Amino acid sequence: MRIGMVGLGRMGANMAARLARGGHQVVAFDRSPDAVRAAVTAAGANVEGAGALEELVSKLGAGPRVAWVMVPAGDPTEQTVAALGALLDSGDVVVDGGNSNYQESIRRAQALRARGVRFVDAGTSGGIWGLAEGYSLMVGGDDDAIAALRPALETLAPAADRGWGHVGPVGAGHFAKMIHNGIEYGMMQAMAEGFAILRHKETMGDAPHAFDLAQVAEIWRHGSVVRSWLLDLAARALHEDGRLSAIAPVVADSGEGRWTVAEAIALDVPAPVITHALIARLRSRDAEGFGDRMLAALRNQFGGHAVQKTSATGTTP
Amino acid sequence: MRIGMVGLGRMGANMAARLARGGHQVVAFDRSPDAVRAAVTAAGANVEGAGALEELVSKLGAGPRVAWVMVPAGDPTEQTVAALGALLDSGDVVVDGGNSNYQESIRRAQALRARGVRFVDAGTSGGIWGLAEGYSLMVGGDDDAIAALRPALETLAPAADRGWGHVGPVGAGHFAKMIHNGIEYGMMQAMAEGFAILRHKETMGDAPHAFDLAQVAEIWRHGSVVRSWLLDLAARALHEDGRLSAIAPVVADSGEGRWTVAEAIALDVPAPVITHALIARLRSRDAEGFGDRMLAALRNQFGGHAVQKTSATGTTP
Amino acid sequence: MRIGMVGLGRMGANMAARLARGGHQVVAFDRSPDAVRAAVTAAGANVEGAGALEELVSKLGAGPRVAWVMVPAGDPTEQTVAALGALLDSGDVVVDGGNSNYQESIRRAQALRARGVRFVDAGTSGGIWGLAEGYSLMVGGDDDAIAALRPALETLAPAADRGWGHVGPVGAGHFAKMIHNGIEYGMMQAMAEGFAILRHKETMGDAPHAFDLAQVAEIWRHGSVVRSWLLDLAARALHEDGRLSAIAPVVADSGEGRWTVAEAIALDVPAPVITHALIARLRSRDAEGFGDRMLAALRNQFGGHAVQKTSATGTTP
Amino acid sequence: MRIGMVGLGRMGANMAARLARGGHQVVAFDRSPDAVRAAVTAAGANVEGAGALEELVSKLGAGPRVAWVMVPAGDPTEQTVAALGALLDSGDVVVDGGNSNYQESIRRAQALRARGVRFVDAGTSGGIWGLAEGYSLMVGGDDDAIAALRPALETLAPAADRGWGHVGPVGAGHFAKMIHNGIEYGMMQAMAEGFAILRHKETMGDAPHAFDLAQVAEIWRHGSVVRSWLLDLAARALHEDGRLSAIAPVVADSGEGRWTVAEAIALDVPAPVITHALIARLRSRDAEGFGDRMLAALRNQFGGHAVQKTSATGTTP
Repeated sequence: MRIGMVGLGRMGANMAARLARGGHQVVAFDRSPDAVRAAVTAAGANVEGAGALEELVSKLGAGPRVAWVMVPAGDPTEQTVAALGALLDSGDVVVDGGNSNYQESIRRAQALRARGVRFVDAGTSGGIWGLAEGYSLMVGGDDDAIAALRPALETLAPAADRGWGHVGPVGAGHFAKMIHNGIEYGMMQAMAEGFAILRHKETMGDAPHAFDLAQVAEIWRHGSVVRSWLLDLAARALHEDGRLSAIAPVVADSGEGRWTVAEAIALDVPAPVITHALIARLRSRDAEGFGDRMLAALRNQFGGHAVQKTSATGTTP
Repeated sequence: MRIGMVGLGRMGANMAARLARGGHQVVAFDRSPDAVRAAVTAAGANVEGAGALEELVSKLGAGPRVAWVMVPAGDPTEQTVAALGALLDSGDVVVDGGNSNYQESIRRAQALRARGVRFVDAGTSGGIWGLAEGYSLMVGGDDDAIAALRPALETLAPAADRGWGHVGPVGAGHFAKMIHNGIEYGMMQAMAEGFAILRHKETMGDAPHAFDLAQVAEIWRHGSVVRSWLLDLAARALHEDGRLSAIAPVVADSGEGRWTVAEAIALDVPAPVITHALIARLRSRDAEGFGDRMLAALRNQFGGHAVQKTSATGTTP
Repeated sequence: MRIGMVGLGRMGANMAARLARGGHQVVAFDRSPDAVRAAVTAAGANVEGAGALEELVSKLGAGPRVAWVMVPAGDPTEQTVAALGALLDSGDVVVDGGNSNYQESIRRAQALRARGVRFVDAGTSGGIWGLAEGYSLMVGGDDDAIAALRPALETLAPAADRGWGHVGPVGAGHFAKMIHNGIEYGMMQAMAEGFAILRHKETMGDAPHAFDLAQVAEIWRHGSVVRSWLLDLAARALHEDGRLSAIAPVVADSGEGRWTVAEAIALDVPAPVITHALIARLRSRDAEGFGDRMLAALRNQFGGHAVQKTSATGTTP
Repeated sequence: MRIGMVGLGRMGANMAARLARGGHQVVAFDRSPDAVRAAVTAAGANVEGAGALEELVSKLGAGPRVAWVMVPAGDPTEQTVAALGALLDSGDVVVDGGNSNYQESIRRAQALRARGVRFVDAGTSGGIWGLAEGYSLMVGGDDDAIAALRPALETLAPAADRGWGHVGPVGAGHFAKMIHNGIEYGMMQAMAEGFAILRHKETMGDAPHAFDLAQVAEIWRHGSVVRSWLLDLAARALHEDGRLSAIAPVVADSGEGRWTVAEAIALDVPAPVITHALIARLRSRDAEGFGDRMLAALRNQFGGHAVQKTSATGTTP
């Protein structure tokens, strides 16, 4: 099929390439002309560049046109979807493949509906490996919009009949992706904790012993209950650097984890592990440690316990 | 190789069968003669039954003999290892493939060492699927003991060169298995929470909408970041019963999770997610809910908030 | 001073009474004429009833008039503040003493400001005991509005010069009250857990032994590090019913705990204990236990572990 | 009464002084002669020093003699109790007022019982403020041993009839103290988190605003639900240094929190908040942050997310 890809970052460029390899005609646009050129160069004949959204829409030809948006969540998605909505015609389809909040997607779909433009939210997982292995796609929207999109979904997924599905009306796709990421937070944290315990176990019996963390991860990859793609990646990272000494212990979070926690609370669902996986990331970035200072101060107040004073240079352990 | 298998429950019987299929001669013993007969019948010519530990040892022939113990952790393992230790000779090998605490394994190895009997702790993961798919084996012990055992390990693992490894001295195998199970607790809980949120999301936008949980799990199995064996099992369970309505919300724990939490604390490693996965299991079995009663009582005391009274029949919500 | 009290529930009626006892003239209104009559009867000469907001405003006399709103957070507060805003004049003061979200208070203050009406948010703690012991009041707003209100604050607080304070601009009062309640959640949960452990300790050494929980609480009330008003209440509740057997293990939450958790996440502050105190309450109300069913199902899938089946009548343990 | 005080650190010296002021005759011993001299000098006529345990026992005169041990938990208590047991006679009483594990106390009592020496475990709370305000004492042991001790308990407690109690057989006193400290961990952490959120709230509406944390704490001390001795101490600490900038965010833990967590798990009691209060302290001392490095590494592996590299000088944020 003919499809527009808007946003050629790591994810969008790879998806354009996978679509092109799958025989689809891709019209590719990015704010950066360099990114457009790179996408065309990398993917060959099936990818055609566009210098502006108008050009992309025009190159998509007769309707129903399909434009897949793969830009950062928040303002970039808001602006891109609105701009496409204004350029497209009744019956055309805008797909948001990014990590948007599902409530935003429901709102955006309503706004486009006024002009007859259809909206599909396609939660997309797979990261930079999706180009080779395919993406997992949770798709929300109306049947006919998704029917128009189906050939692309069958190519983007790991196989035509698996790894993608129509999970509900608009919003359901991004909701399912949000939950996916919440689970991902919890799984990652469970692994991180397990390897940290292994790392800190420095004796066995009375003798010194250090585990080879990459070896343990490698063993678990085959036949164990915890075998998983995340474990494959953990093994990879540990093979590269068994003590991860070049990586700082500072972990970003992207919004999806926060939304999952907020949704769990809104629905009265106890989700301690996903919530704690988020809190652990907040903690990794809390350089001041005010709460810990308060604990140390209280201990000092009631028990006369010694507190560690901050050093003269102002850095704190 | 020739190997004894002591304990023919779900795990031991399957392992005997996998070894036999791999061409090894297995001498199989269980307290239950029925279990011995069943193992012999199921596995065919390569499995020979024994009616007592003495018979098993005798049938293992000339040394170094290898006896693999696959009985419940705690007293059964304690007694079995001690009995084998008394029957075996210097140079023979006792393998504990069960879920023993690694500190017990170190102690047992020391006890056997007095008689020259060697001890190997082989943490074993894979559950009832290991027969077909192979087991993940984390092995602790001396080089020469493990060398004697190696042909069996190469057969039990998913492939001769992967899924098993010598991770350290005695104790290291069960330690690694303990951590594996801790990670497993966290991964399971993360999944359980994610599906629970999906389950309780009953509208999308303003309209009623229920997710097909089996469908979502199925999509995630292909190409997603959370793809994993546990997700395969979740999809299976949800295909069988999408609301899990026949399964009570009561979750046992086996000891490994508790040990992981205790070890994390002993090593000063923060492990909030693994710890919470354990606490969630404790909570699932806390029918009295005394802590929650106390909260309700306190709210009533300070705010005059209404409390839900227990019903006349004594059941509590 | 002359002051209007709008809302004569448990909190508002007590506050009207404390103000009247302190020599202030209170004009009292509630949607329920019975509540107005009861407040007038209970408090005597210094409380005058009003049958409508208009009458209350009129009876407040010349400005600057002060009306204290003590109705449930959300819609009731929204409507009451808006109605008062329309009836009052420039320079008059509306105080919201309820548990409103601080962002709502900032919005309401802006709306009133258009007409010159001033808004004060007075976070109020103390519960039903405040009548006798005084209230803790965290007050947000402009200096002059709070100056107009000061005589009432000095009477409502435990003492004229303590237990109340001007903590910042509008919003700051309700923000501080929100945090107060978040801390309260954590303290209550810590106590509930501690008493639950004591409750479940049923042997000491090898002999049966049950703690007298009321006795332990009573000991701690004097001289211990955990002495606190919440502990006083815990002792009271345990003196009444040492096993809390008449109280169901179901705990409501009022909104403030959720807001505290959301704010902590928004500010990137790790707050595991306050968050868990909220999650414990959610869990107390999760009768279905879908997450726990999923865990039991997974254990059954991988290990063939027995699951507890729900009974024929559909109830679950 | 006549009583020996063994161990004259912060706690023991203050307790000797409080007993002396209460009219008791105290024989005081410490390994450090300086500490003995200081205790005698500080407390005046009613305190007599001893240069060795033998001298202390001899100066206690005719039985039943009572010796109160106030030395660090673990080896020092073990050795002191054993030494006293060997010096004392049948009917004499050894009191352990320290933070010993209750299981150790049960074991020590059994050892002393062989010689007829009685053992009392007196969990003691109150910190350095106990001298002036009295101690909260949870006492375990036999009726007659506690009867012999009663005059001292009535003086040490805040009042003769409150703040102390006989809570059960030997072990029950230290068990109750352990739970007290677990609750203390949770309450402290709840407060620390609440103040940390206040600290990080740096705007109100659209304008900059910083809370005066000492002021907020001071308000809460009077009439609020969270009023408590720990809050009094928090107010004190914040009055001294509103940003706690001189105190490092590093929090020790003393053992009691760990034991509480272990006991909760052993009794199948879910105690998420006390557990997390402990984990937060472990986290405050985890300078390496291996778990967080693993998370950052995984994010980099699957998403190509940038990781923060550790700096050339080897320090990590």
